[in-house]
Amino acid sequence: MENPEPIAIIACGGRLALECIEHARRDRLLAGVIALDGESDSDVVSQADAVLKWGQVGQLIKSLETIAAKKVLLIGSISKRPDFRSVIGDFETIKWLPKLLTTMAGGDDNVLRKVIGFFESGGYQIVSIADVAPDLLAPAGYLSKKKPGDVNRRDIKLGFEVLGTLAPFDIGQSVVVGNGRIAAVEGAEGTDAMILRTGDLQAKRRLTWKDRTGILVKATKRDQDLRVDLPVIGPETVKRCAEAGLAGIAVEAGRVVIASRLECLEAADRLGLFVTSLDRNQIATQSAET
Amino acid sequence: MENPEPIAIIACGGRLALECIEHARRDRLLAGVIALDGESDSDVVSQADAVLKWGQVGQLIKSLETIAAKKVLLIGSISKRPDFRSVIGDFETIKWLPKLLTTMAGGDDNVLRKVIGFFESGGYQIVSIADVAPDLLAPAGYLSKKKPGDVNRRDIKLGFEVLGTLAPFDIGQSVVVGNGRIAAVEGAEGTDAMILRTGDLQAKRRLTWKDRTGILVKATKRDQDLRVDLPVIGPETVKRCAEAGLAGIAVEAGRVVIASRLECLEAADRLGLFVTSLDRNQIATQSAET
Repeated sequence: MENPEPIAIIACGGRLALECIEHARRDRLLAGVIALDGESDSDVVSQADAVLKWGQVGQLIKSLETIAAKKVLLIGSISKRPDFRSVIGDFETIKWLPKLLTTMAGGDDNVLRKVIGFFESGGYQIVSIADVAPDLLAPAGYLSKKKPGDVNRRDIKLGFEVLGTLAPFDIGQSVVVGNGRIAAVEGAEGTDAMILRTGDLQAKRRLTWKDRTGILVKATKRDQDLRVDLPVIGPETVKRCAEAGLAGIAVEAGRVVIASRLECLEAADRLGLFVTSLDRNQIATQSAET
Repeated sequence: MENPEPIAIIACGGRLALECIEHARRDRLLAGVIALDGESDSDVVSQADAVLKWGQVGQLIKSLETIAAKKVLLIGSISKRPDFRSVIGDFETIKWLPKLLTTMAGGDDNVLRKVIGFFESGGYQIVSIADVAPDLLAPAGYLSKKKPGDVNRRDIKLGFEVLGTLAPFDIGQSVVVGNGRIAAVEGAEGTDAMILRTGDLQAKRRLTWKDRTGILVKATKRDQDLRVDLPVIGPETVKRCAEAGLAGIAVEAGRVVIASRLECLEAADRLGLFVTSLDRNQIATQSAET
């Protein structure tokens, strides 16, 4: 069998980027790593072929040429918003920075498409986690020791229904639902802030759930570009859900990444949350059962 | 013309209750006022026929009998969640309190229906602001000096579309939209908290709007019972929107209350926000223009 084409990984914040690097190296797919100064995990930086600062778009293109891979995985989070004045960029940067910034803020499919277009116009192909490390995607089934009960299953169904309804609007990768009611819909604030909010609402008795009732339901948007914007849950998501008094997490199988899966499911088991994953057929069937 | 039937007003927090009382008195519709201790405005309490504590459901029924009106307007907000242990109720209370509490937390149409059923089973008819003070409802048109521009109008259209989509799910009386993107969807946290969030997101640069871009769009849910759950904006809403850097407010005409209208629109003019109101036909036409 011919060797598959090598992949350059542009690795931003979080441990998931490290997992992708490890998977790609194990499968002899890794051509090189580009890290982002101040964002990438130190374990990523230590093995990176280049560590770029915000806005070095010209340098980024040079680094990709040196790595000599035509396939690129963009992975990881951007937590810090650079101050425009502190960014020392080059000519390409000045052109692209505003769009890149908006992109990194998340959620705007149009801008993501433009960024992909930027790489593609340079002859690069943007690949997805599904290409590099497919076993990081949630498999269908109950993933934790705890399983959702009947009420939970109805809530999960409702959650996926609302996400399906919102999908055309480029919003809402996730909702929190409990006792037949949508308690929170994710907007520009992101999943973590939304989870936190449902905890606050219970503390303030704006949500009067008995015990653990709420469920985080997370799925892809209908036209979401899975190459650059795959929804992710991880150990921190589980911990935040536990802190917010939620009962569990339901994700769309094969289209949501579970980062640090072992640690993630251990946390779920330790904290008494369920984690379950439904494929598109199950979601459609559940929704049809009304 | 025969005199219209008198109305008892159960007035909870906020100045809107006071406006309703004034309107009903002016129109010779007011039979009496029942205030809620610790919630009602002092100007409401001072003219109330009875001031009840949380949980005095038996007393509430007695007061309604004394007032001798068969039509009842439930109006005003509940800000404080009583501690169950501190509520000194009566037999009826013990039966109804949990449901009343959930009701007051807002958003659960089923429970609101049950509360209406509770009054109806006692021979009372729950009326709406539209019956008591129809001129408190937003008239169609531009209400502020400032008017929405073309981009604003497209965003308003998008906002009403999302609200229409979410209507069957008993969620989302309002959204914040800007530059063709839904930034926030109201869940159990309520409109004020959602507005506040969009201000925070701009400060954190999760939303990178230039100048004032975001718009609060507010409408009724499809099956919303307008007798007990009419959406309201008021001067505080305008101030919160200004603080969050929003450009304006768009509401559904005839189905959203503008509390303290003069003060509300003066605040909008002073703070440079637009307030506009579209009737259902305009909303449908706008949505069909895609």
